[in-house]
Amino acid sequence: MKVVALSGGVGGARLVDGLAVVLPPEDLTVVVNTGDDFSHWGLRICPDLDTVLYTLAGLADRQRGWGLTDESFRTLAGVEALGGEVWFQLGDRDLATHLVRSERLAAGEALSAVTAGLCEALRVGPRLLPMADEPCSTWIHCDRGRLSFQDWLVRARGEPTVHAVSFEGSSVPAAGVLDAIRAADLVVLPPSNPYVSLDPILALDGVREAVAGRPVVWVSPLVHGRAVKGPLAAMVPALQGVPPGPAPLLQRYEDLVGAAVVETGDGGDLELPVLETSTVMGDRNDRARLAAEVLGFATERLELRAGFLL
Amino acid sequence: MKVVALSGGVGGARLVDGLAVVLPPEDLTVVVNTGDDFSHWGLRICPDLDTVLYTLAGLADRQRGWGLTDESFRTLAGVEALGGEVWFQLGDRDLATHLVRSERLAAGEALSAVTAGLCEALRVGPRLLPMADEPCSTWIHCDRGRLSFQDWLVRARGEPTVHAVSFEGSSVPAAGVLDAIRAADLVVLPPSNPYVSLDPILALDGVREAVAGRPVVWVSPLVHGRAVKGPLAAMVPALQGVPPGPAPLLQRYEDLVGAAVVETGDGGDLELPVLETSTVMGDRNDRARLAAEVLGFATERLELRAGFLL
Repeated sequence: MKVVALSGGVGGARLVDGLAVVLPPEDLTVVVNTGDDFSHWGLRICPDLDTVLYTLAGLADRQRGWGLTDESFRTLAGVEALGGEVWFQLGDRDLATHLVRSERLAAGEALSAVTAGLCEALRVGPRLLPMADEPCSTWIHCDRGRLSFQDWLVRARGEPTVHAVSFEGSSVPAAGVLDAIRAADLVVLPPSNPYVSLDPILALDGVREAVAGRPVVWVSPLVHGRAVKGPLAAMVPALQGVPPGPAPLLQRYEDLVGAAVVETGDGGDLELPVLETSTVMGDRNDRARLAAEVLGFATERLELRAGFLL
Repeated sequence: MKVVALSGGVGGARLVDGLAVVLPPEDLTVVVNTGDDFSHWGLRICPDLDTVLYTLAGLADRQRGWGLTDESFRTLAGVEALGGEVWFQLGDRDLATHLVRSERLAAGEALSAVTAGLCEALRVGPRLLPMADEPCSTWIHCDRGRLSFQDWLVRARGEPTVHAVSFEGSSVPAAGVLDAIRAADLVVLPPSNPYVSLDPILALDGVREAVAGRPVVWVSPLVHGRAVKGPLAAMVPALQGVPPGPAPLLQRYEDLVGAAVVETGDGGDLELPVLETSTVMGDRNDRARLAAEVLGFATERLELRAGFLL
């Protein structure tokens, strides 16, 4: 039973971490949003890829919600003393990833190959694929004009109201992405932001069509109208004109999703098979618990051929 | 009284640090070797410039002999874990310099402008000039073939016997270098390696001629035939076929140097005005002591117009 998950940052990474506990590594492929990628200090930063990588490696910091555990910020302090930009906080341990990746990209390696190398070095079993090898950037059209994603989310603290989201750059998925989706017994859309995490992946050439051909289970990123992390809750009314909830988000994927998993009490108005459960994930056991529930529910309600023996 | 010092790394930096104590900052210009510069982790590293910069800022580590005091190596450990190259040790605090410099160079700033900015940020008063804005690399022709300087010195630990040294790249001095030398009341050749620290500067277009037109005092980098730091002692027999001592080194500058300062007991066979004193520098007071002796001796024996009032 092959599973492909499309993922953004923290929420997606945690469910993927649970999937990695309950599935053999060779059965799990994660296609990660790279629309948030940007250049900083001359380095290529891939926030979502790194969040998934660090989470699967057991190295993600849980308190902070981003970056590595046991982190320090001595280089950052040095850059500040030299008058450099410090609005995006890069830790000393985290920097190693950006340095190694940037150097390998500059030497001509594809992002997907670099990512495979990082996974191997950090002993991450499942296959991590960047959604694209070439840059495809997410732009936020907001009260302050057109901002790059990190400019809006981090530098402007996600405060300016969003009017639209657009993607610019290559629309070619990374090698392996379409093949993995087409071979999947199940596609999981984990609790990631639809507008800026899942849409960038689904907007690439052929991805939405490939996903539409497979059984898909969706996990809501909203808990009683709020996001566990990130700017999602305010984006729903701003972009769709309705209060935040699973229904407007699912609307965007009604051609794709066959079953939904939402927080207990949130499934009222949904017109597809719904599992209500606790979707806020704590430690790895809790992530595995939710992953098992998602796979079990999908097996049953999407009538998967073989099913997941959990 | 304007002084220009040509400098390599540690030895030169320490005398320059002494000069910075006894001279007003506007009277001291340091032209620093950039032949050792190289790219590592995709960053532009300027070892001699940084050693002079850190030493003048009071931030150089004395025990280690390179890099910054109160340093840590967490990024390095991370890069090692990811399979990157760690033969050249970059500290977390030190990295800030390379990141800021590399980004500014990539944005089109000249190395001399970037260096001025770093000096300002670290409150370094004297003017620091890289010898050249464009790369001009020192190559070591040795038992293992032709190696870049850092490959030879750090990666191969300076072990392969050197047969020749050559310079490759732009031969144009950085803006300001020739003007500073031509306006100097005194040029100081501090205790730096002649082959790989001073020669790269003197080999640039017009530099040797400009220095030849000014009074020059030279400080020997050898102490009883040994170098305080670095590979110099073994290079003298390898490159000049004689035992290490001030005489063969001075021979290379006999058209330039009017007075020499050597370690007590080392001046026997020199045929120019020589001051014998303690040339091994400890703390900043000791560096200032030697600097004052060098300036005083030069004033007297080179019959400098105004002299240094110390």
